[in-house]
Amino acid sequence: MSMPSSFASERPVVRLKPKANARAIRHGFPWVYDNELVTDRRTKALAPGTIAVLEDDKRDPMGLVATNSHSKIFCRMLERDLDAQIDQAWFEAKFARALAMRERLYPSPFYRLIHAEADGLPGVVVDRFGEVCVVQPNAAWADTLIEPLVAALVAVTGVSCVIMNGSGRARSLEGLEERMEVMVGQAPAGPVPVKMNGATYMADLTGGQKTGLFYDQRPNHAFAAQLCKDAKVLDVFSHVGGFSLAALAGGAAHATAVDGSTAALELAQAGAAAAGVEARFDTRKGDAFEVLTALQEEGAQFDVVICDPPAFAPSKAALEKGLRAYERVARLAAPLVAEGGYLGLCSCSHAADVARFRGASLRGIGRAGRHAQLLHTGFAGADHPLMPQLAESGYLKSLFFRL
Amino acid sequence: MSMPSSFASERPVVRLKPKANARAIRHGFPWVYDNELVTDRRTKALAPGTIAVLEDDKRDPMGLVATNSHSKIFCRMLERDLDAQIDQAWFEAKFARALAMRERLYPSPFYRLIHAEADGLPGVVVDRFGEVCVVQPNAAWADTLIEPLVAALVAVTGVSCVIMNGSGRARSLEGLEERMEVMVGQAPAGPVPVKMNGATYMADLTGGQKTGLFYDQRPNHAFAAQLCKDAKVLDVFSHVGGFSLAALAGGAAHATAVDGSTAALELAQAGAAAAGVEARFDTRKGDAFEVLTALQEEGAQFDVVICDPPAFAPSKAALEKGLRAYERVARLAAPLVAEGGYLGLCSCSHAADVARFRGASLRGIGRAGRHAQLLHTGFAGADHPLMPQLAESGYLKSLFFRL
Repeated sequence: MSMPSSFASERPVVRLKPKANARAIRHGFPWVYDNELVTDRRTKALAPGTIAVLEDDKRDPMGLVATNSHSKIFCRMLERDLDAQIDQAWFEAKFARALAMRERLYPSPFYRLIHAEADGLPGVVVDRFGEVCVVQPNAAWADTLIEPLVAALVAVTGVSCVIMNGSGRARSLEGLEERMEVMVGQAPAGPVPVKMNGATYMADLTGGQKTGLFYDQRPNHAFAAQLCKDAKVLDVFSHVGGFSLAALAGGAAHATAVDGSTAALELAQAGAAAAGVEARFDTRKGDAFEVLTALQEEGAQFDVVICDPPAFAPSKAALEKGLRAYERVARLAAPLVAEGGYLGLCSCSHAADVARFRGASLRGIGRAGRHAQLLHTGFAGADHPLMPQLAESGYLKSLFFRL
Repeated sequence: MSMPSSFASERPVVRLKPKANARAIRHGFPWVYDNELVTDRRTKALAPGTIAVLEDDKRDPMGLVATNSHSKIFCRMLERDLDAQIDQAWFEAKFARALAMRERLYPSPFYRLIHAEADGLPGVVVDRFGEVCVVQPNAAWADTLIEPLVAALVAVTGVSCVIMNGSGRARSLEGLEERMEVMVGQAPAGPVPVKMNGATYMADLTGGQKTGLFYDQRPNHAFAAQLCKDAKVLDVFSHVGGFSLAALAGGAAHATAVDGSTAALELAQAGAAAAGVEARFDTRKGDAFEVLTALQEEGAQFDVVICDPPAFAPSKAALEKGLRAYERVARLAAPLVAEGGYLGLCSCSHAADVARFRGASLRGIGRAGRHAQLLHTGFAGADHPLMPQLAESGYLKSLFFRL
């Protein structure tokens, strides 16, 4: 390890307890939990977002960390180089590296640009919608350094508008207040059209869930679209039409989107209209479980049914209940799939790993009296990279069965 | 359960021991191991390939099974309907169902048509190369019923040539002899051009490994090709150029294929020539480990390096040794990846699950002094479906890292 430099020595210091897993941190694990630190009065008094030098229990420095005394994740590793300055140039290097990968993979500038730890900016999410970036600073340090962060984002990408969306569960776990503001330029007057897999989606960047559109399902939308040529398609928990609009772009004969949100279904309709496929598209508002039950009573059959519900198992405590909910989705959806047709089931629950989610899905299919082949297991797209040390937590799973 | 019919009662009967997992079989598990059966003298005398009625320990019939007294997998479930005749019409129904899915997914007739148990034909593999099908009857029953099987295959697909490739480890586990013959039509005079992901591959259907070309990596080739635009690419364990020719079709500036087989590299060269990309392609014959070491000594750097080795852990007994080999591949390949470049690592070992393979890969990358993001985890394509009951054994894993 390098010795503490004169610059680093001016920073506050936090120190690991002997029992902490210093080896894992040296090998790349990015977090230090509050119970792994020597928390003396000075450490507890650090303002959330303070950048500190992390030392191991022998007082050897390990790197620069962003601290938050209000969070269970007390330290997030920012930088192994103790002499680094966390300034606009530092942010520019992170953005430039992340951008190079996205520009390689995506023909137009619609993607998740920064996926937190894996892209070197712990707790920070940036989604790009053409000329607009939406920043989620879900860790205290990013709130504190939001100005150089945004300046670097504009310098590297050249976007004309940056919106900060500081809402949601991740911020409350960090003890951060809700913030929503336009930091650069002017927010788009209405929903922004986003092209993905040949479909057009309408993203509401100021009023929508999270950042108004989820890029994570892109490869799974693409797989589904391949299955949907000439097919009658049901897209349950459709949000703004993720799977149904991709299916129509892939040549589906007809697609029905089901969601509980009128606003989401209106955006789906607008997307269908923008792509000129509204004649093959309809929506059904309601509770997904009730609509699935009603469709079965109506004797409805589809060639392809896809269910992409919200996280039923957002935490380990909710796992068993969540798995029962996934089983129920599968049990209610399977009878709607025509013989030889296809069923796509998705989970965005961290706590339910792919084996457990597959098990719950198969129990539901079995209880519906159907047998299945498993055709495809997909995860989030490459613009949602994982730190290998956190790879077990890859949250999005997408399974496609043939019944 | 239905009662034994007069027809079924003419068939030999095999019976589960009380300790056997009848419930799993009822829920779709497709195999009965030899130690789960009451093996009296009559059962032991069944000719390999005999179709029998499987009964549970209460003598309730469970279905028709293909038996092989020479195999550890004594019974393979063929059919739950006891009255079914396993004849040409039965095979035609299986082929028609499998074909419908492939025709939906693939624009031209190049795919795995039958992937054994998951496609309802236990132990049988059929790969299609346009007008030619290659059948691997890797279970005794398929040898016995090869005539109606091949007649049905021709009737459903209309292919003009069927080749039986009865070689390899799966057949020896079943106690079957090697057989290689042209069953229908005339074998192609030379390698057959196969279009996949915009590339042209040359498949040697009579002299090559297994069926001369592997379709399983198709979606992973496609992902790699996206990464390779304008890139300098190294494809190690290239076989006939799977990743390198896809990379060139995706716009790679240059690709080098490394393999120990002169015949495979000649087919790769022929594929490059057929696609008109030979000016951007070269090959290097040799032991992959030696070539990787030599390239490092030469100071070679690539934007994308992909390693797709043979199964290093073909069985549980070979797992630890296999994982060390995967780690070694990663350790030797990582130094050849330029800063910010990409490393693709594949495993086709059943015994190494994705978490273990990822762990071995990361140890190797770490030992090379590099850090990685995980961009993509891919499996075999949808023309290699899985029985959910055997899904843990999904053999092909493909991981793409950014270093």
